[in-house]
Amino acid sequence: MDEMTITIPTPDREAAERTRERLNQLAKVPGSLGKLETLAIRLAAMTGNSAPVFPRKEVIVFAGDHDIALQGVSATGQEITTGQVRNFVRGGGTINAFSRNAGATVTVVDVAVKDDINNLPGLVNRKIMNSVHDFSKGPAMTRVQAEQSVQTGIDMARDASSRGITLLAAGEMGIGNTSPSSAIAAVLMGIPVSSVTGIGSGINTETVRKKISLIEQGIRLNQPDPGDTLDVLAKVGGAEIGAMAGLMLGGASLRIPVVVDGFIAGAAAAIARGINPEVSHYLVGSHVSVEPGHQMLMDYIGVEPFFDFGLRLGEGTGAALLFPIIDASVRILTEMILFRDMDF
Amino acid sequence: MDEMTITIPTPDREAAERTRERLNQLAKVPGSLGKLETLAIRLAAMTGNSAPVFPRKEVIVFAGDHDIALQGVSATGQEITTGQVRNFVRGGGTINAFSRNAGATVTVVDVAVKDDINNLPGLVNRKIMNSVHDFSKGPAMTRVQAEQSVQTGIDMARDASSRGITLLAAGEMGIGNTSPSSAIAAVLMGIPVSSVTGIGSGINTETVRKKISLIEQGIRLNQPDPGDTLDVLAKVGGAEIGAMAGLMLGGASLRIPVVVDGFIAGAAAAIARGINPEVSHYLVGSHVSVEPGHQMLMDYIGVEPFFDFGLRLGEGTGAALLFPIIDASVRILTEMILFRDMDF
Repeated sequence: MDEMTITIPTPDREAAERTRERLNQLAKVPGSLGKLETLAIRLAAMTGNSAPVFPRKEVIVFAGDHDIALQGVSATGQEITTGQVRNFVRGGGTINAFSRNAGATVTVVDVAVKDDINNLPGLVNRKIMNSVHDFSKGPAMTRVQAEQSVQTGIDMARDASSRGITLLAAGEMGIGNTSPSSAIAAVLMGIPVSSVTGIGSGINTETVRKKISLIEQGIRLNQPDPGDTLDVLAKVGGAEIGAMAGLMLGGASLRIPVVVDGFIAGAAAAIARGINPEVSHYLVGSHVSVEPGHQMLMDYIGVEPFFDFGLRLGEGTGAALLFPIIDASVRILTEMILFRDMDF
Repeated sequence: MDEMTITIPTPDREAAERTRERLNQLAKVPGSLGKLETLAIRLAAMTGNSAPVFPRKEVIVFAGDHDIALQGVSATGQEITTGQVRNFVRGGGTINAFSRNAGATVTVVDVAVKDDINNLPGLVNRKIMNSVHDFSKGPAMTRVQAEQSVQTGIDMARDASSRGITLLAAGEMGIGNTSPSSAIAAVLMGIPVSSVTGIGSGINTETVRKKISLIEQGIRLNQPDPGDTLDVLAKVGGAEIGAMAGLMLGGASLRIPVVVDGFIAGAAAAIARGINPEVSHYLVGSHVSVEPGHQMLMDYIGVEPFFDFGLRLGEGTGAALLFPIIDASVRILTEMILFRDMDF
């Protein structure tokens, strides 16, 4: 697909090397900050700056509905998507509280919310469709819609960059979106649906069985081609998942690190990786969710998550919790003295 | 020991219950914030406030030397303790950078630094001795010195409280202090020294063997009584470990949560627990270190750590990384709308 090619710059190995050297010269035991040092080195490679800073951070929340939720495979109804979109633009959601805590802004983008809520102040209207179709009965989206969803994410990364944002996180709101995420994970990794399907926001064992069966049915019916990422996204995916993938690709193309949080973002990262594998260099893992298959997805995209707090809310909440840790990892590069300058 | 009794208030179950109820009423799936919800409920119980906030946080770093380090069981020499104390009071250490990142202050207290650096501006002088003795050759401290160390920590908690601090972390700087920490862990938990002894800041396998043998020798020689915590602290412990234990006890007595970070803080928490088991209700675990025995210690004191980033620096660095997560866990209590107020 020509429309979906995107150029991602090579990570800056020289900047990374300078950061590694500086970390070893700081007034501390070399290597003693573990994963934070690895992170600082990666952030240098991403940004091309051996001492990057991220004063302006943003979580972009893509919202969309999924008609597969009408089959009763979700803990809550679709009205929650609309309700939370309204809540987020007013600042009353968990993602708002966590983002304020990290000094980050939140932008909410409607890509496939069922209801028409386009005149809501503060909401970015990039609606592609009024809910993604039930993929257990046919394709979730057309190929054009799938492309549009990825392009929306790319556009949002560019828009954020133009506003001075230098650190991004891909968030989502969409009742029913663990089902397409499981489908994407199963198809792209070539593993059974049952190994990547869990309770989502909270359903019982019986419903999990039904959910697995519906996802399997959808894959059988649509026959997505694992070698054609956009085909997988269109047939068994979702618009907010495509947009998150686009945000990752767009961020990477601009040397902006993108934090990947949760299972749905993991599925989006797998889509992004299918479009351009170089994207992984620009992704930072935050929370590994209790959803089975999430760790497998993180391994697949080659991104190591930082923590496991038992979160299962989504929205990008784990990413917002990682922001201060990202700041800490680079702050030492400019705020610590060197070992050789110590005064004994 | 009468001198060491300290009254710790009962956690406020009613405040905790109100917080639990509010968490379940917020505009999110109940329980979906996992360990952050458990933390918010615990913080309510500690503070007696169902929506606590922690605008003023502090890491108190207790510094002391250990003559057991002269036996070559540490990666670096004792001069590093003095050098880092000078560095910390000037703001150039990792703990300073991480604390600034979290909006927290750092106070450095000399309890047993070998060198006399008492006139250093910004350093709190509570020196009990010029380096703790080599416990492989005799007792680390007298019982009176051990009591003084704990009292110093209690005093520092009271001092912090009088300055408006409502969240504390116990940090340390002391070359050689993993050896007494391993000794304390082995004696109090009644397990072999080898199961709780590791590479500290970075020593090779041969040196680890020597370290284990020295610690075992120290325990054999001193015969610390596991039923008498102060005896253990005096004979095979250290002054900064006693002071950290005191800070935990002092914080708990004032309903101030104290973050326990790393292996040495874990050993200090075990000492604090021996003096008053109620202290555990007021402790928050941050980082579980790669040091073997750390997780065992956290289980022993009944505190669950939040993350594992492969840190092995000490200082309280993991605690400073947890501060923003603590803020996030309580911020939702006041900044989110309730589910029933959602607008669909």
